[in-house]
Amino acid sequence: MREDKSTVLLNPTVSEAASAIQKAFAKRRTLIVAGNCKVRYAGRANSTLESGERILFIKQDGALLVHRPVGYEPVNWQPSGSIFHAESKQGRLEIHGVREKPRESVKVTFDKVFMVSALSLEDSGEFYLHASEEEMHKAVLLKPSLLEEGFKPISYEKRVEPGFVDIYGEDKNGRLVVVEIKRKTAGKEAALQLSKYIEAIRTKVNREIRGILAAPDVGKDVQRLLATLGLEFRALDPKKCAEALRKTETKKLETFFTE
Amino acid sequence: MREDKSTVLLNPTVSEAASAIQKAFAKRRTLIVAGNCKVRYAGRANSTLESGERILFIKQDGALLVHRPVGYEPVNWQPSGSIFHAESKQGRLEIHGVREKPRESVKVTFDKVFMVSALSLEDSGEFYLHASEEEMHKAVLLKPSLLEEGFKPISYEKRVEPGFVDIYGEDKNGRLVVVEIKRKTAGKEAALQLSKYIEAIRTKVNREIRGILAAPDVGKDVQRLLATLGLEFRALDPKKCAEALRKTETKKLETFFTE
Repeated sequence: MREDKSTVLLNPTVSEAASAIQKAFAKRRTLIVAGNCKVRYAGRANSTLESGERILFIKQDGALLVHRPVGYEPVNWQPSGSIFHAESKQGRLEIHGVREKPRESVKVTFDKVFMVSALSLEDSGEFYLHASEEEMHKAVLLKPSLLEEGFKPISYEKRVEPGFVDIYGEDKNGRLVVVEIKRKTAGKEAALQLSKYIEAIRTKVNREIRGILAAPDVGKDVQRLLATLGLEFRALDPKKCAEALRKTETKKLETFFTE
Repeated sequence: MREDKSTVLLNPTVSEAASAIQKAFAKRRTLIVAGNCKVRYAGRANSTLESGERILFIKQDGALLVHRPVGYEPVNWQPSGSIFHAESKQGRLEIHGVREKPRESVKVTFDKVFMVSALSLEDSGEFYLHASEEEMHKAVLLKPSLLEEGFKPISYEKRVEPGFVDIYGEDKNGRLVVVEIKRKTAGKEAALQLSKYIEAIRTKVNREIRGILAAPDVGKDVQRLLATLGLEFRALDPKKCAEALRKTETKKLETFFTE
């Protein structure tokens, strides 16, 4: 007999809520409690959250989140590994969570409970990050060290017959660098294309020029071709580019975990 | 007549779920949907989350979170300001969220819904961070620039008759610095205590010594006393100390928002 994926109590008394929550802890359910609560946290720092209507989330591994009705950040949180206990005390529902290393404890006190939901969830789905070729360009512009330390981009998508150079810039020794970026394993065409750009630029500029083909990978024959043409290969991972973009987009969000 | 704080559907069909969710969006409710889903995100980067049982959270301001049953991090999230739409399509529940600046979109597709809950929550409770005096010590040790740029702690809680020096170290000019930390507005006793430590150290060490009283604030008369004793005052905010500690504790967590 298959147990229900979810059980719900609507507007329970605090003692009904406490016993349902204790049951959910014992069965290692993911728990959602909505109601009016205050929160005290003590650990490396201490915090107090005054009374308000929120959602408390305790996951199957003991991770805890308290969410206000607005904003994507939790107002309180604790990583997995906490030990929890729920009880009804003087007309209130108290949920305690304690974690070692570092020692921290959180107490959520509800004077009113709107909903208690206990869920049994199974999730082994993989998470994949991707970046398009254009996003890889942006990532290198925003974080040039993805290409090499000391690289300074000057321009991108610059018209150079017979087409457009993806990125050009200077290396740490002041040499001009022309970069061709590919999202997948780079073929011979990519190497020949880059070589043509460099030839075209050489007719106009009297300085040392390096050509870099940046891609997740390159074929063996292409590696030989690059050597013949005097060009270089740099491994550039679309996933790392996606992460770098995500990071720049959400720099402000780093304050998240400082509360 | 007061509307219910929460409404819940258990094991709805996808079309029942879609219509309840559309209603919740129209009323600006906080929405919780538990079920088996996959997620596609496209924005500055792209991501795919394969099928699994999770909790989707859409807040009253349009912030979105997808939580797996373990870990305190959301696997997908979007800040407030997204526009949402839910529909039932070929036996599946599709929830689309679109946000401008930066343009990003998320699609959560459920093939099974365990629960839909719509909550109307009000929360204006303040959040306060505190640090104890001991935590303020730790914060200065971990982030000495809280005291002053170039300060290098050497030791803490060092026995110096008639007691213990909170922190001592060197300033950027190599002068010895003795620090006394108070959690609240510092009184005359704190200044006199610091002065005694410095006298005691002077009898043993033949080098220039600075004495710094660090506290959130200091009384006017104490400021005069400090000047007379040749000591300095530094404003040290317990909240900033708490934030600094939180930061060091959760440095690893900064990867959170890079997915």
